[in-house]
Amino acid sequence: MAKVKLYQQMQVNLAEKSYPIIIGQNILADSKLLRQFVFSKQVMIVTNDTVAALYLEVLQKVFADYQCNVVVLEEGESFKNQQNINKIYDALVQEQHHRDTTLIALGGGVIGDMTGFAASTYQRGVRFIQLPTTLLAQVDAAIGGKTAINHPQGKNMIGTFYQPGAVVIDLACLATLPEREYRAGLAEIIKYAILEGGDFFSLVSTALKKGLAIKQSADLPAIISACCRIKASFVQHDEYDQGSRVLLNLGHTLAHALEAQSNYQRWLHGEAVAIGLYFAALLSYHCQLIDKGTLNLIDNLLALAELPRRIPKDFDLTMLSQLMSNDKKNRQNKLHFVLIKDLGDCYLSDEVSNKVFKSVLHYAVEGA
Amino acid sequence: MAKVKLYQQMQVNLAEKSYPIIIGQNILADSKLLRQFVFSKQVMIVTNDTVAALYLEVLQKVFADYQCNVVVLEEGESFKNQQNINKIYDALVQEQHHRDTTLIALGGGVIGDMTGFAASTYQRGVRFIQLPTTLLAQVDAAIGGKTAINHPQGKNMIGTFYQPGAVVIDLACLATLPEREYRAGLAEIIKYAILEGGDFFSLVSTALKKGLAIKQSADLPAIISACCRIKASFVQHDEYDQGSRVLLNLGHTLAHALEAQSNYQRWLHGEAVAIGLYFAALLSYHCQLIDKGTLNLIDNLLALAELPRRIPKDFDLTMLSQLMSNDKKNRQNKLHFVLIKDLGDCYLSDEVSNKVFKSVLHYAVEGA
Repeated sequence: MAKVKLYQQMQVNLAEKSYPIIIGQNILADSKLLRQFVFSKQVMIVTNDTVAALYLEVLQKVFADYQCNVVVLEEGESFKNQQNINKIYDALVQEQHHRDTTLIALGGGVIGDMTGFAASTYQRGVRFIQLPTTLLAQVDAAIGGKTAINHPQGKNMIGTFYQPGAVVIDLACLATLPEREYRAGLAEIIKYAILEGGDFFSLVSTALKKGLAIKQSADLPAIISACCRIKASFVQHDEYDQGSRVLLNLGHTLAHALEAQSNYQRWLHGEAVAIGLYFAALLSYHCQLIDKGTLNLIDNLLALAELPRRIPKDFDLTMLSQLMSNDKKNRQNKLHFVLIKDLGDCYLSDEVSNKVFKSVLHYAVEGA
Repeated sequence: MAKVKLYQQMQVNLAEKSYPIIIGQNILADSKLLRQFVFSKQVMIVTNDTVAALYLEVLQKVFADYQCNVVVLEEGESFKNQQNINKIYDALVQEQHHRDTTLIALGGGVIGDMTGFAASTYQRGVRFIQLPTTLLAQVDAAIGGKTAINHPQGKNMIGTFYQPGAVVIDLACLATLPEREYRAGLAEIIKYAILEGGDFFSLVSTALKKGLAIKQSADLPAIISACCRIKASFVQHDEYDQGSRVLLNLGHTLAHALEAQSNYQRWLHGEAVAIGLYFAALLSYHCQLIDKGTLNLIDNLLALAELPRRIPKDFDLTMLSQLMSNDKKNRQNKLHFVLIKDLGDCYLSDEVSNKVFKSVLHYAVEGA
């Protein structure tokens, strides 16, 4: 059996809703560690078919003497919907899970978002813990209590704020992560680098140049841990996304519309975010907030991570801007964007005119 | 136009989630009163076909210069499900309601529960206000932030705790309430009388004898207002139902199972509660907590309100006890019941043996 090694532990401080983030190697098999977060003898593991094949058995061993049930969903953002939430509800009712049960999200962001949503609404709220297995979920999605499912007309349109009881990040899971999924996670890391600027931007930048896109990078644990710390700090300051937390939406206005318009099938979330980050940078450039050098710096980072950066030529831009007007950040029928003033200095703007927005959308198309 | 008259105002104190309960005559038409609870220019009224025919127009007038959309659902507990929640989501997305929108629940407990659930999950939570039009919703369901939909296997199995921004009770609505709906509301009033005991039990008891079952009773406003006060007090002490609030579940363990087993079609919620209250009293009597006199007192109150009090003969008791084992109060696979020690003195028990429970279930059947 592979050696269990604890890398780091930190706390998300939210009064009585505080919880730990634990980062380590092979900690999915650590019974003592995991069982401390379950308060009854019932657990329901929610996972997808790909992850189940790799890690379900090891987790079931941890809860061998519990009532341990499993829901295995199909993999992918296009399954993050009501039908699959109902599968979780049905299993919970069928197996008579009580209000003191614990749901365990074993998988990426999609599994985490759905498990969290089911946990927040089953019997008006039961406990859940996050065991993120993808890079994207480890650095971003598993932390902070945003749960959601998609609506055909809008990404994450239905959801709750509901904090997990713990986030347990097993770095060893990245070894089995497909290259494409791994690169999608890099998009959120680049987002944090832009938001944070300074030393963290340099660290990510250097690591990408040295080949962070190759999973075995020695810098990876430190980068993951830094992202968790940045995310935790945003969440602590603004749990319900009414102020500063909105900055974490950098690149996401376009990303969510791209995902909805392609029925959540064309891109992984992180890939859509990469296109969205370039668009946010381009918009900031055309609003004369950043210079060409900064725009190129961001574009190059995304290129180093081999992520998509442009809107495909075949995309209907009218429908895309229509979908963007559904964005959750919008108020009083005005588009809201997170813009970049400088690396480490972003803000929410409602002052991008429709004209500027539409022309920049055209500039963000492949070959423009 | 009928005269607007304010009867009483009180506050549910829950720190930053505090909200007012306002009781009056014809206050559904009071623009100034209602508009203070809406913070943007978007509202979505959720109602059912029966209530819409009576009160939708007057409410639409209040918001004539707002973006005011409407979702009209079919009436009844059997429509309190996912499909109808999706109709609300679809309307909200379609009409581009933003995070600062306000949902307005215009109707009874079913409409209030569904509107609250939709509000708590649309874009991770938007504002909503309760305009209860039935007696049951005015004295109970509209207050306290329990939102829910039913699962085929269990009443209110899916839901959230999510407080409204205000509860506005228009007593004039009771004039159009069908007799059967009105009697259903009396069941919850009798529940409060048992929980509270003392003067309030006497008030309700006397009023029922004088004919509270006739809507024009002069005592009704005082009784409604007292119920609101009792409910608010329970909610303030235990918002998330982890302690004393569970007592409000008196009679509901059986009631919820009766409703689920009959596909939410045979009884109004209050009617099922009436059978459940008799069962709770009978169980308390057989556990030697109350004497025959108290049992009869409770049974007589329910009889005065002309409510059903016995489980019908044709009911499958095995399936019924199976459904009761899904109850949200259960922990560690043990049945939990709210029992009566005395009028004004109830408690949660996990010590009713399966044998006693099953025999008392038989005693609660019609003609037993």
